[in-house]
Amino acid sequence: MSISFADPTALTHDQLEEGTDFAPRFDAAGLVTVVTVEAGSNDVLMLAHMNAEALALTLQTGVAHYWSRSRGKLWKKGETSGETQQVVELRTDCDQDAIVLVVNQTGRGAACHTGRKSCFYRRASVSGDTATLQDTGLPRLFDPREVYGTPS
Amino acid sequence: MSISFADPTALTHDQLEEGTDFAPRFDAAGLVTVVTVEAGSNDVLMLAHMNAEALALTLQTGVAHYWSRSRGKLWKKGETSGETQQVVELRTDCDQDAIVLVVNQTGRGAACHTGRKSCFYRRASVSGDTATLQDTGLPRLFDPREVYGTPS
Repeated sequence: MSISFADPTALTHDQLEEGTDFAPRFDAAGLVTVVTVEAGSNDVLMLAHMNAEALALTLQTGVAHYWSRSRGKLWKKGETSGETQQVVELRTDCDQDAIVLVVNQTGRGAACHTGRKSCFYRRASVSGDTATLQDTGLPRLFDPREVYGTPS
Repeated sequence: MSISFADPTALTHDQLEEGTDFAPRFDAAGLVTVVTVEAGSNDVLMLAHMNAEALALTLQTGVAHYWSRSRGKLWKKGETSGETQQVVELRTDCDQDAIVLVVNQTGRGAACHTGRKSCFYRRASVSGDTATLQDTGLPRLFDPREVYGTPS
């Protein structure tokens, strides 16, 4: 059994924005953007993408699945690292081209392949006409060389 | 004075992921994806995009600027509605193709053009093989017909 979604082009603007049909507006590459946040803290863990299959699998199994653009394939998050994500809630936005996925991060609690809790571990600041990054100090919860066998 | 960014193609993988150079990886359309969250609550308010000019203006002015893909132009958030966003922090992710913008939402506190605090006001659930949406109950803080002069 696979989950089916409504066709956004068959909906009116009002139905798309205020209705109960889930009609994800996949882009030309067949993807929607997903913001994954930690349940409770609301911390943004990562930003990724889903195709229709990954979205359906995520809803069916309650475990986060994405589409890896770099590897060009379906990606069950944590398949290699053990850092799976249990879905608490899945929300879509007004025009249904983006998703917020609220999860409990399992394993060592590291959503990022660098071993940190979140991918967003650097803040930008401006000095003169140059923008630079500063590490916010998120610790590494695993060593990516041990988990992936290659440097992060 | 305009802020300049580093060229990501001139950086090593390690410099991109662990370094202090801010080298946004704009996509083929010249955009990075931006997740805007509310300071304090961490609530995800909206998902949008920035080109280099919007990113530089956001850093320079401390007020959120985006690139409107639907209108094809620079977009100072709140220009029409008054719902501007004061930047508290701007973070980038491991491979520098996404941004988390932490803001104080001004005005009536509505980041979404529908008048709600957040664009993510519907959650998905599955019944049988169909996914549907349920309103999470976020109230409208303004009437979009009054603010924009047209239905939302």
